[in-house]
Amino acid sequence: MPCGGQGRCGRCAVIVEESVETQDFASVRRRSTQRLSPDDVAAGYVLACQTVVEGDVVVLVPPQEKIERRLKEGKRAAKVALPFPYDLHDQTLRKYTVTLEPPSLEDQTDDWSRLRRELVRRYDLGSASPADADAADPKGVRKPLGSEGLRVSLHVLRNLGNALREGDWTVTVVVDLQAQGSPRLIDVLPGEHLESLWAIAIDIGTTSNHVWLVDLISGEVMAQKADYNGQIARGEDVISRIIYASKGDGLEDLQHLVMRTLNRLIKQAARERSISPDEIYKAVVAGNSTMIHLFAGIPPASIRLMPFITAVNQLPPFPAQEIGLGINPEATVDCLPGIASYVGADITAGVVSSRMCDENQELTLFVDVGTNGEIVLGDCTWLLACACSAGPAFEGAGVVHGMRATAGAIEEVWVNSETYEATYRVIGGEAPRGLCGSGLISLMAEMFVAGVIDKSGNIDLDLPTERVRQGEHGPEYVVAWADEADIADIADIADIDRASVRASAAIGEDIVITAVDIDNLMRAKAAIYAGFSILARSVGLTLADVGRVLIGGAFGQYINVEKAIQIGMLPDMPYESFHFLGNTSVRGAYMALLSERMRQRVTEVGQMMTYLELSADNTFFDEFNAAMFLPHTDETLFPTVRRGGGQIPNPKPQTSVGNDK
Amino acid sequence: MPCGGQGRCGRCAVIVEESVETQDFASVRRRSTQRLSPDDVAAGYVLACQTVVEGDVVVLVPPQEKIERRLKEGKRAAKVALPFPYDLHDQTLRKYTVTLEPPSLEDQTDDWSRLRRELVRRYDLGSASPADADAADPKGVRKPLGSEGLRVSLHVLRNLGNALREGDWTVTVVVDLQAQGSPRLIDVLPGEHLESLWAIAIDIGTTSNHVWLVDLISGEVMAQKADYNGQIARGEDVISRIIYASKGDGLEDLQHLVMRTLNRLIKQAARERSISPDEIYKAVVAGNSTMIHLFAGIPPASIRLMPFITAVNQLPPFPAQEIGLGINPEATVDCLPGIASYVGADITAGVVSSRMCDENQELTLFVDVGTNGEIVLGDCTWLLACACSAGPAFEGAGVVHGMRATAGAIEEVWVNSETYEATYRVIGGEAPRGLCGSGLISLMAEMFVAGVIDKSGNIDLDLPTERVRQGEHGPEYVVAWADEADIADIADIADIDRASVRASAAIGEDIVITAVDIDNLMRAKAAIYAGFSILARSVGLTLADVGRVLIGGAFGQYINVEKAIQIGMLPDMPYESFHFLGNTSVRGAYMALLSERMRQRVTEVGQMMTYLELSADNTFFDEFNAAMFLPHTDETLFPTVRRGGGQIPNPKPQTSVGNDK
Repeated sequence: MPCGGQGRCGRCAVIVEESVETQDFASVRRRSTQRLSPDDVAAGYVLACQTVVEGDVVVLVPPQEKIERRLKEGKRAAKVALPFPYDLHDQTLRKYTVTLEPPSLEDQTDDWSRLRRELVRRYDLGSASPADADAADPKGVRKPLGSEGLRVSLHVLRNLGNALREGDWTVTVVVDLQAQGSPRLIDVLPGEHLESLWAIAIDIGTTSNHVWLVDLISGEVMAQKADYNGQIARGEDVISRIIYASKGDGLEDLQHLVMRTLNRLIKQAARERSISPDEIYKAVVAGNSTMIHLFAGIPPASIRLMPFITAVNQLPPFPAQEIGLGINPEATVDCLPGIASYVGADITAGVVSSRMCDENQELTLFVDVGTNGEIVLGDCTWLLACACSAGPAFEGAGVVHGMRATAGAIEEVWVNSETYEATYRVIGGEAPRGLCGSGLISLMAEMFVAGVIDKSGNIDLDLPTERVRQGEHGPEYVVAWADEADIADIADIADIDRASVRASAAIGEDIVITAVDIDNLMRAKAAIYAGFSILARSVGLTLADVGRVLIGGAFGQYINVEKAIQIGMLPDMPYESFHFLGNTSVRGAYMALLSERMRQRVTEVGQMMTYLELSADNTFFDEFNAAMFLPHTDETLFPTVRRGGGQIPNPKPQTSVGNDK
Repeated sequence: MPCGGQGRCGRCAVIVEESVETQDFASVRRRSTQRLSPDDVAAGYVLACQTVVEGDVVVLVPPQEKIERRLKEGKRAAKVALPFPYDLHDQTLRKYTVTLEPPSLEDQTDDWSRLRRELVRRYDLGSASPADADAADPKGVRKPLGSEGLRVSLHVLRNLGNALREGDWTVTVVVDLQAQGSPRLIDVLPGEHLESLWAIAIDIGTTSNHVWLVDLISGEVMAQKADYNGQIARGEDVISRIIYASKGDGLEDLQHLVMRTLNRLIKQAARERSISPDEIYKAVVAGNSTMIHLFAGIPPASIRLMPFITAVNQLPPFPAQEIGLGINPEATVDCLPGIASYVGADITAGVVSSRMCDENQELTLFVDVGTNGEIVLGDCTWLLACACSAGPAFEGAGVVHGMRATAGAIEEVWVNSETYEATYRVIGGEAPRGLCGSGLISLMAEMFVAGVIDKSGNIDLDLPTERVRQGEHGPEYVVAWADEADIADIADIADIDRASVRASAAIGEDIVITAVDIDNLMRAKAAIYAGFSILARSVGLTLADVGRVLIGGAFGQYINVEKAIQIGMLPDMPYESFHFLGNTSVRGAYMALLSERMRQRVTEVGQMMTYLELSADNTFFDEFNAAMFLPHTDETLFPTVRRGGGQIPNPKPQTSVGNDK
């Protein structure tokens, strides 16, 4: 659940049925009923995470919102173009087929020495002081670094004897040359197997995980798989997960959950290409710092505590079996480096894949709008980064009728500035069940432009429409009436009254946005804009100096730029200045997989990036407060935004529930 | 059981009771009754390992020989003297206590970089290009080798954050400088813990395992523990174990069994010194090649198949947790190098600890008389080694009344050359139950000198004594009459007749040595002597050129040299030329633990040692046949041995069953 068991989100509400009948609540003890109305409490609702069972009770778990997968990847995924001309020898994985002289009573050399002897002779691998291997290797192996020669694990030695004999002394070895340290023997296969060489790029997002299966012979992405991070069930944002990880075996649980998601995606990708996951010999992994900690099973506790320190920004490479990643047990897992608790490997990888710091580039703002909000400002000579703690409001958390961008979510809204009536478009074209991030931005902008809310976000209760009203949580605006929603399918599931679906999505209720919701969204957008301002000001520039804005992250792709400018979330710049890059994190991991030079570039970007800790910045609070208006206290920053009309006229559909998707 | 389920040793005989009553043997199918007499078969005996149960049966398992521990180590163990002046800095384990600058909003460096930064600053550990650390380190750390800087595992990184905060930014780090490769961070402990530094030396014998707990501050052995190798239950010699390892999950089973034995010994040793096994940060391991393979979980199959190849002679160091060794999970496990399938790390370590190849030494013969028989000939300039496949006859296997050197074993015999009566000494002073190795050597020699057997080992059935007779398995000599054994305690256990204890030790039977037993022992001693001869001849020398004989191995300590010479097992040299060194293998591991120079010496010894494969040597069969006489075909080789008297007069006790032990 969104808050990870802190009693804040109200999503885990259940009904203690027996207590309702007997009006005897002695068998449960409620520690907190925050997020429940007096009516809810009277109806027997409790927050599961805040309730102690002290006797026999009958509990009804109301139907939960069914998460339908609507991620961009999958069958519809477009072929990923090679980001640069690919050369097999730019990356570190190698396969060699060697035929050994069989052992005899005259030559009783042990299996491992026999193999190593041949690898030294032919490829100069494994010798203690390697000479230049480029000369010795017709395939262009680079000089192995390190003084230890070829490294090998017990795991590989355990299979060695069988492989040599099964292959009748002809085997194919898989070696990771590893830029740092000695080359490492990953696998020994009987016979010749030079036809394939597989690896994966992984992006571990707080919300969704992405796996790209890469054919290192051609360099091409051969399968793309994505799914929600299994950890979502333990909290929607990184803070909730860190808290969960610090309790009992929470860390282990989270590690298993993300591994289960990734391993499922890996299996799906492998099946699509008819290979075994054991044939995947390397993984490059990007993700925010908390996700990388949890992936590797490292306690993330200090990330959320002042002064916000990670255990490790750059993990050493390790074999897949150490964390249970379902590829070849000895495959190298290379987690890309992050730079701070809230600017992780997803951002260093994102910056590299965005090419914002390639040579001769203009001043660029890179924004990753995910569950967190990270911003990087710079050019090819310097980079400044911050995390603006926008929170998950734009992902539907902390908003009464907020939801993720799945079927039933309102993703675009239009408000008539004369009648104040709303029309909207719903994902999947079905009856609406709530509002997703892009829908919330759209709604905020339309309400502001139509005059439903003022500069401070206050709802005008005097408007001549029933849509504005005093609700249970204060003033609210009705986006969709209850009768616009179809409750039939829920009613089919069980003979329960409307109250019992209270804890699920808002089916059967009016879908509203409340004053509290608006305040949360204002804070989120203000945090992002304040981040922009402070980055620019801290280097003596203004946002007017920025030449272009690159928007990464899956969510970023759905943002309506004009509306985001209208609420003052994005700076007021021409539409052409904005570029949507999609998932820059997985693309950066993919590039690092294809080229050791790119991999090195990620490290360099991390090193050249300066992290600005906003919570330590005196001006942050001022900038934040200045941005707590629509679009901003300083209207000169948003010259194209005015009440009664947007920057560019919005195309308005006919007044009907849209089914055009 | 000794043969590991091959139907050769007869030790697993059980009685199918129901079949005895009904005389219907349809419910069991006997694949082999080798080792069972017709009487045994009629009595319902089957070999458990060779019998398929095909219906309901009632099986009686006769009481088995109870193995009593009589290993030399334990409470009676003498304090081990330091083998050379000890210098803490000659070995590779280090502890450093460092205090870090706590993190702040101004310095958000991650925990791992913060620790590494301080280690680089103070000890030059972990830097990518280490300078000379001796200058920087007051404690004399040597220059870290390798280009990778300080290596660290996920395991250590997982505990790092807690340790730093628990210790309030003062921690003690444990580092293995590792002569080969980069230094490795093993542990991070909160606070200062410089008071101790523990490690262990391990010897994995086919029969017994030894663990020495070493205090690396003083270099002293602080506890010695030994026990039978838990694998004995799966076969007594390496061949049986290799066969067992190749079936089903036999390898895993054997690996677990030896680990269980070692971990028990480690716990005992740690408890004796009131430390936790987690405080043990390094293990140096010696053992024969099969034992090392099984310890590391590497299939040993090719060791017993022509042309006898190991998977690996020198394992890379690995962390203890990879094989489940119960010391600190990240502790370095360093398995010493062997040189061939049948000349393993026990011999390289043994040679180093015997100092046979130190400077200015005379020609030396080193013999390790264990379950195998390995021989090394050489001096400080060359070493020649062979394994003579003596087999386990001297350890009691393949001999009808053979047993291990435990309570009830006859360990010394005297045969009166006029009456042919035997007197003997029994381990523990109890009633005799069988003959152990030293007892068998003693018995053979006495029978030969007294004229009970001739040069070829044939028993003289015409002697005027009831002790020589035609038995079930041919001619035999009675060492102890049945009434000299006390069967009361066995009779107490169950109301069973004499036949039912047939499969256990020979309680209640006459203890005899048969013509077949004598043949087996002749083969064993001939193999050892042939090994001596061939080693010497292959370098153009004779045994007369040998200056001294060093005898290693626990069993070696119990050999009566004169009697071993009388049967032609050891060369005929003055008593002063023989030196009993005890367990040279564990001592070699201990020396390698104390000094990196000694550790390197083990590798050098392995490299300078030439392995002679006896089965590929044309002269082996001739030498073996020549040694199949008592003492030898060529009597000139044994000038001091003559029928009617030994080399040196044997001290003979009064004619009584000895209870003097």
